[in-house]
Amino acid sequence: MATKKAVVLLSGGLDSATTLAVALSEGFLCYALTFAYGQRHKREIQAARAVAGSLGVTEHRIIDIDLAAFGGSALTDSAIEVPKDRGDLDNSPKIPLTYVPARNTIFLSYALAWAEVLGAFDIFIGVNSTDYSGYPDCRAEFIAAFEQTANLATAAAVEGKGRYEIHTPIIEMTKAQVILAGTELGVDYSLTHSCYDPDSKGRSCGRCDSCRLRLKGFAEAGLEDPIEYRTENLD
Amino acid sequence: MATKKAVVLLSGGLDSATTLAVALSEGFLCYALTFAYGQRHKREIQAARAVAGSLGVTEHRIIDIDLAAFGGSALTDSAIEVPKDRGDLDNSPKIPLTYVPARNTIFLSYALAWAEVLGAFDIFIGVNSTDYSGYPDCRAEFIAAFEQTANLATAAAVEGKGRYEIHTPIIEMTKAQVILAGTELGVDYSLTHSCYDPDSKGRSCGRCDSCRLRLKGFAEAGLEDPIEYRTENLD
Repeated sequence: MATKKAVVLLSGGLDSATTLAVALSEGFLCYALTFAYGQRHKREIQAARAVAGSLGVTEHRIIDIDLAAFGGSALTDSAIEVPKDRGDLDNSPKIPLTYVPARNTIFLSYALAWAEVLGAFDIFIGVNSTDYSGYPDCRAEFIAAFEQTANLATAAAVEGKGRYEIHTPIIEMTKAQVILAGTELGVDYSLTHSCYDPDSKGRSCGRCDSCRLRLKGFAEAGLEDPIEYRTENLD
Repeated sequence: MATKKAVVLLSGGLDSATTLAVALSEGFLCYALTFAYGQRHKREIQAARAVAGSLGVTEHRIIDIDLAAFGGSALTDSAIEVPKDRGDLDNSPKIPLTYVPARNTIFLSYALAWAEVLGAFDIFIGVNSTDYSGYPDCRAEFIAAFEQTANLATAAAVEGKGRYEIHTPIIEMTKAQVILAGTELGVDYSLTHSCYDPDSKGRSCGRCDSCRLRLKGFAEAGLEDPIEYRTENLD
């Protein structure tokens, strides 16, 4: 088991940091993959670098891809404002403006390409049920469909060298469970970044969906969130 | 029908040029998408531009993506030589060195992202049966799996705004049939480029798989290939 390679998608947020820790705890040699995709919260790339260094990956690649060229999301289009202080996140019926068209499909496609070149058949992605505050590409059905596609798309699979598996170790956890699991595995959450709309010093807003889910998770886990928030935004 | 938008993957080769002509003939407003992916035959990007201009697209985007960062293919890794003068192409059991890991998965993912932003539900890709001289991601099973993934991945599909369809109008044609169909639809094949290993003047080698399939196609169609080949390579 110790020599099996895995590609791990690493955004720099707490979900992907925890997912990386799980993959390492299962004995995989981890190849972390981060995307600079024109996101307005570039701060998370710096976080990804810190997390990869702290947990210990075999290799970390940061790939430039231009999703902002297409627009259509508050995360990549500065003309669309990041929603703040939305109502009940858990029961929100609508897909939020921070949805980025086909983002996880693109991310997983790149992970698949790298995996095939590395001779790896395991890909880890930190999608979770709380994230599906409306993101269709964070659901188990989507992951299963992509896994099937991967096994038809690639020479390695078609030639019978192996079967691709997309691992989603935290998909059914609440944010609090993710934080408790990661804490047990030694994740340093002070290195992670979640905010969609940080200020120029990298401080989190505390009011976007991502900050609010994070703060709620730490509160439910009975732990203190170690990152810095803009104090004027907190109660 | 005349106002329906489609995203058309356009490489600059004869298959994708013909596919674009088919999409236009079906009344779609076509948004052509070309990738500069670190391919050694960059000449094809220039061809894509010429074809898009000649056939008349609504918009043409050329996206830079760095597949060469991963390597693993003769098309993106200068350390791997493009195979020449291979034996019987039609009955070749092996996936060739020119296979690029997960390429069509990545291309279709980007097409899906753009389609969602445009409000389009139709994507055209010029895969064909002859291309499956061993490329797993040119097969109908792969396309069907990707189509299913697309319909689970995106907000537009999940919210019921439409159903994504991946069109493969030339998938069952021989190269000769593609050339005859395109000629009927007004494709100017002198603008297209197929060679994996052109010289510095953009002239085709005549000996790689792609050149040989092209030359065989024109011969079987009873037409002359209008592009320039390096004369020292031809019989």
